[in-house]
Amino acid sequence: MLTDLTVKDFLQKTASNDPVPGGGSVAALSAATAAALTEMVANLTIGRKKYVEVEEEMKEVVKNVLQVRKELIQDIDRDSDAYNEVMAAFKLPKETEEEVRSRKAAIEEATKKAALVPLSVAQKAFVMMEAVEKVVTKGNQNAVTDGAVAAMMTRTAVLSALYNVKINLGSIQDTGFVEEVSLKVREIETKIEALEKNILAHVNL
Amino acid sequence: MLTDLTVKDFLQKTASNDPVPGGGSVAALSAATAAALTEMVANLTIGRKKYVEVEEEMKEVVKNVLQVRKELIQDIDRDSDAYNEVMAAFKLPKETEEEVRSRKAAIEEATKKAALVPLSVAQKAFVMMEAVEKVVTKGNQNAVTDGAVAAMMTRTAVLSALYNVKINLGSIQDTGFVEEVSLKVREIETKIEALEKNILAHVNL
Repeated sequence: MLTDLTVKDFLQKTASNDPVPGGGSVAALSAATAAALTEMVANLTIGRKKYVEVEEEMKEVVKNVLQVRKELIQDIDRDSDAYNEVMAAFKLPKETEEEVRSRKAAIEEATKKAALVPLSVAQKAFVMMEAVEKVVTKGNQNAVTDGAVAAMMTRTAVLSALYNVKINLGSIQDTGFVEEVSLKVREIETKIEALEKNILAHVNL
Repeated sequence: MLTDLTVKDFLQKTASNDPVPGGGSVAALSAATAAALTEMVANLTIGRKKYVEVEEEMKEVVKNVLQVRKELIQDIDRDSDAYNEVMAAFKLPKETEEEVRSRKAAIEEATKKAALVPLSVAQKAFVMMEAVEKVVTKGNQNAVTDGAVAAMMTRTAVLSALYNVKINLGSIQDTGFVEEVSLKVREIETKIEALEKNILAHVNL
């Protein structure tokens, strides 16, 4: 698994002329990093007298965001796997009419999956912004910068994942699928920058 | 070293209630990830007939950005180390007047370093945006999404690092130092969002 590589080796593998891991896996990593920072701020809030009123809320944040982080970590590999499946489908034989048809169907199926993995990353990161806002506004203020970084990393993870959705939508024939996913993309896209700005407005440095 | 941890373990360590690695190290990681993606797009451009005219330019990008990535990888640890030094300075004895004075000086010195490490990350990432722009506008257009992700990750790395500079400036007594660094922060801060937007404007999805 990519996430069993050391940080250094993961970066080395990204830099190589192999297209995976690429922007899609990096989007998932960025979201997972934001999750980790959000958990950290919550963990630095739990057990402090000054923040006893938000103790339960912070415990909820840790519990929920840890789960999201685990899923995002799997998405790092899922995104690269989905890309490899598209490439594999393109390599299918296309001698007979039957082969041409079944290759085309395999490419379509694999490309849909390659769009749905980053869509799921974007959706998870988008929902996570609520937890980021909680730790920034109610969490330990000594760690407010970490919360701000989490907000920016989440925004970038969402937008990066959406770019990866859109590039795949461009080669999908099923117009119903494309329309449905495009709608979901736009919904998130229009809101995420404002969410980031609202959270950062709470951080006065 | 933090970067010898697996990606999973690095995230786990970030999530813990230990303040390091925190937002500063994550800013450096984010910049290093952007560097790796930039190298990847350049590597996917080199050796392609269609892009023979930019071959030399892409080789330059790989050479320069690889060097930046190596430095940024070290900054991941440097940032955490600088934070630990501030904490260590706070723990120095303060019984005698002499001890109080030397503890205060040690805190000031360590905090300056804790501001200069993320400033250096921000500066390196800021300069790297030029290479990101090159791969997006002149590199392999099949990997343009990866270039777009690199642009967004670089923007977030710069802003995240600058938050970490500013939080440290808040506790530095040396007003000359604070003014000088603040000026550098503002210079980068005002330009980075526009740079990102200009690059993303080249990506039509």
